[in-house]
Amino acid sequence: MSLVVVGSVAYDGVETPHGKVERMLGGACTYVSLAASFFTEAAVVAVVGDDFAQADYDLLARRGIDLAGLERVPGKTFFWSGVYSPDMNDRTTLRTDLNVFAGFDPKLPEHYRAQPYLLLGNIQPSLQRSVRAQMTAPRLVGGDTMNYWIGQARGELLEALKDWDCLLVNDSEARQLSGHHNLRRAARAIFEMGPRTVVIKRGEYGAVLFRPEGHFMVPGYLIEDVFDPTGAGDSFAGGFFGYLASCGLDLKDGAAIPELRRAVIYGSVMGSFCCEQFGVDRFRTLTRAEIDARFNEFKEFTCF
Amino acid sequence: MSLVVVGSVAYDGVETPHGKVERMLGGACTYVSLAASFFTEAAVVAVVGDDFAQADYDLLARRGIDLAGLERVPGKTFFWSGVYSPDMNDRTTLRTDLNVFAGFDPKLPEHYRAQPYLLLGNIQPSLQRSVRAQMTAPRLVGGDTMNYWIGQARGELLEALKDWDCLLVNDSEARQLSGHHNLRRAARAIFEMGPRTVVIKRGEYGAVLFRPEGHFMVPGYLIEDVFDPTGAGDSFAGGFFGYLASCGLDLKDGAAIPELRRAVIYGSVMGSFCCEQFGVDRFRTLTRAEIDARFNEFKEFTCF
Repeated sequence: MSLVVVGSVAYDGVETPHGKVERMLGGACTYVSLAASFFTEAAVVAVVGDDFAQADYDLLARRGIDLAGLERVPGKTFFWSGVYSPDMNDRTTLRTDLNVFAGFDPKLPEHYRAQPYLLLGNIQPSLQRSVRAQMTAPRLVGGDTMNYWIGQARGELLEALKDWDCLLVNDSEARQLSGHHNLRRAARAIFEMGPRTVVIKRGEYGAVLFRPEGHFMVPGYLIEDVFDPTGAGDSFAGGFFGYLASCGLDLKDGAAIPELRRAVIYGSVMGSFCCEQFGVDRFRTLTRAEIDARFNEFKEFTCF
Repeated sequence: MSLVVVGSVAYDGVETPHGKVERMLGGACTYVSLAASFFTEAAVVAVVGDDFAQADYDLLARRGIDLAGLERVPGKTFFWSGVYSPDMNDRTTLRTDLNVFAGFDPKLPEHYRAQPYLLLGNIQPSLQRSVRAQMTAPRLVGGDTMNYWIGQARGELLEALKDWDCLLVNDSEARQLSGHHNLRRAARAIFEMGPRTVVIKRGEYGAVLFRPEGHFMVPGYLIEDVFDPTGAGDSFAGGFFGYLASCGLDLKDGAAIPELRRAVIYGSVMGSFCCEQFGVDRFRTLTRAEIDARFNEFKEFTCF
């Protein structure tokens, strides 16, 4: 089952305590689709400039990702750079050059429109709505957002949310969106906005899945060396949604709970692998066998 | 099997976003022994002043706690007061009056000395060593410490640690003690200091148990309303050690791992209950049935 992913394909400059990379492939859509590609066929909707490297295009293509929706226009690809704090729990943005992304007007190729799964990466809520509207009747719609849109485009975001089955955010975003510090209350308030499945990503502390009938929690994987946390949240989203798509799951079905729990683990697995090397490098060599071995590790260190 | 607990029995003044209490029963030894008393017989070693209220004495006695080692001397009982930040993740100490605790020289009643379990609460490492030396041949010795002793009495603390089977600390203490930010590395460094079982308490984010052969992680219970986090870490220790004592466990035995994992859950259960009311109030009404129901909740929200 194909998963349509919309978001940024970008170049990133990243500095962590382990080193510095001036320019490498990045962007939410990149991380999500790469992570999802280990579970299902991913199809991207994004825009890049004429500086987008063939090698980067090839990396995505080799993972079987459908690139029909990757628009290439004159100009430069979105560029972001940032530096992480010594413990890597905070980061400072040094530069954000939207470049061709400023004029992004996502148009879905015809064969994307009837696909059953849609993941709306963190972009303007109006663009998320436009993409959603171009899909015929998706079985499952998930989306991400961030503090900027919650604060600056709240009305538009609330309109978008009405149509989503699943929201994936971090804890501070959930708190800002709902106005509740307590995560149980925050999730209940978000249910009222539309999504009946809320996944709260807590970085090194794991993730919580909320549904009206209950919740599921997983601690974060203890990574020996975090080289670069960039993209970990998007990789989580890719693993989570990619696994759901591979099950052909319909969230309206209450019986889906065991699959949802496993999806949270697969999301955590993909987020943890992402941090082990700079940028998307870990996904160049990662295998499904390694993914399943780590899934089993999660079972082993949480079972009692 | 009796668990001997040494530490402070105190009066606390606490302010949280939910209210303010000028003076109530507190202290590490109080929280540890109350929490442990739901699993095993606890026996305290502590000192109080002549202002120590009969009602507080009775509360401990009613829980079957052996108070033969609760010394009463002229003067005032240890007093601490503090105020919590709005999210309750930080607190500021307003006052610490050691009072009679300044002259504390723990002496174990004769019938304590041959008991199999010993938990050394967070006091001067030299006093922890003195108590340990008064025990004949404890099957299991655990202890807590804090940033102050790690920084100011490091040599004495390292001497004490050589004799401990288990160290219970929070993540910043584990990092300070070991010099490693990464928790896996921190635990390995602590193994070399003596304790082969390291429990790292992470507050709302749960706990991690490290052993040379592997680790176990549990997320924190999502409490609907945290009224007062004071004593949660000590209640964790009481539940953890109390459960181990109730199993008659010997940590030298590798087969003990399932019990150790369950002990971490019982610790988490007791820490979570502690936060639901001010001070020790939740322990006045708590039942073993409620404890086991919450243990089962942990199974439910972590199982996949």
